[in-house]
Amino acid sequence: MKAIGRIVGSKPLNLSLYRLVTQHTSVAVENERGFKESNERLEYLGDAILGAVVAEYLFKKYPFKDEGFLTEIRSRIVNRESLNKLAVKIGLSELVEFNKGRRHSQSFKSIYGDSLEALVGAVYLDRGYSFCRKFILKRLLRPHVDIDEVIITNHNHKSKLIEWAHQAKKEVRFDIVEVNNGKHYKEFVAEVYVGDKMIGKGTGPSKKKAEQSAAEKAVSRLKIMEKPETEP
Amino acid sequence: MKAIGRIVGSKPLNLSLYRLVTQHTSVAVENERGFKESNERLEYLGDAILGAVVAEYLFKKYPFKDEGFLTEIRSRIVNRESLNKLAVKIGLSELVEFNKGRRHSQSFKSIYGDSLEALVGAVYLDRGYSFCRKFILKRLLRPHVDIDEVIITNHNHKSKLIEWAHQAKKEVRFDIVEVNNGKHYKEFVAEVYVGDKMIGKGTGPSKKKAEQSAAEKAVSRLKIMEKPETEP
Repeated sequence: MKAIGRIVGSKPLNLSLYRLVTQHTSVAVENERGFKESNERLEYLGDAILGAVVAEYLFKKYPFKDEGFLTEIRSRIVNRESLNKLAVKIGLSELVEFNKGRRHSQSFKSIYGDSLEALVGAVYLDRGYSFCRKFILKRLLRPHVDIDEVIITNHNHKSKLIEWAHQAKKEVRFDIVEVNNGKHYKEFVAEVYVGDKMIGKGTGPSKKKAEQSAAEKAVSRLKIMEKPETEP
Repeated sequence: MKAIGRIVGSKPLNLSLYRLVTQHTSVAVENERGFKESNERLEYLGDAILGAVVAEYLFKKYPFKDEGFLTEIRSRIVNRESLNKLAVKIGLSELVEFNKGRRHSQSFKSIYGDSLEALVGAVYLDRGYSFCRKFILKRLLRPHVDIDEVIITNHNHKSKLIEWAHQAKKEVRFDIVEVNNGKHYKEFVAEVYVGDKMIGKGTGPSKKKAEQSAAEKAVSRLKIMEKPETEP
């Protein structure tokens, strides 16, 4: 609780709320109503609150940018990887309790980011919107997220590769070569070809994600560099 | 402005904000900075605020439902069709200004719902979160959205069809038979077969939507009835 207090910057009032924040579903226990309590419901709520606060922050910071720009930058800030990293930066990741025996399950890929969203949900329920908004802006966004950096970094490996190929006058083709029906989820396997040569292979829980993963490997293998967007 | 005041239940303070609410992008004019002002930025903001308020509302209303249920019901409440209908119900649709000559563009399918989101964004900026939250709950959700009805209605035509086929021991197959590259967007054409017989054909801006549209026609042709979900 002390650690949570340091992260939030204020003493938690409703302790039971915060206790749930670090409970991943893999260690959830049934309550007296037969309902398994974990941080998942708080995560659902926190995701929505975080989305609203970041939406407003960008809306006011960029008064002359259109909604396409705002939506894209927001999704880069609140996507799984960013939130995972943010949770590590603020030390929340060290507090998360989970069952290591089941760590191959899909839900482990976002375990830290999910706990961060759950924390936002708990702060909202505990202290209200205005406090929670300040917590997000002062303790998460401003100290830990470099928005200019977010703007110039293109995380879309597929579009990066296609753009490169277009300029190099080469042909790029993505193929889904395998779909594995796992116990808990599907896994897609994508290959990407430049001309006749396979230059990247990736997997993911959707076609799109498998293609992104394959494109990421291709981009790294081809040493395609980041190029700042012009007038983002 | 009087009409907007009646819808919101309180006199607008910052009039210029509300003036933008009803300006669809098709009638947007450039301001002195060369930026085309329409309701799209407000819509982006309002979408996020509405999402947060509905998320919290469902979170508290259903303390023993998991996040999958909450996410699904939320998306049924704030999806394009629901918001379009809601905008008509409260009379906002009558105030929206748009260029009728361009009404075939994709952005017209959600013109009323978008203006409703823009109104939420304007109320938020004008009066703050707490007022806006009350506006959403008291003026939109409680009087106009029957959540029990939302819960028992299955809008997923594809899953409805597949479930029906499973029980009837028939085979269902979806095919994307055409992709048209329009000027502004792609259009997919899907066909659905039960056994060897094509029983529905639909179009949409994504494969998923084209399949839903085809499934909807099949469901209606086969007279597959709504079945309330058990223990939603």
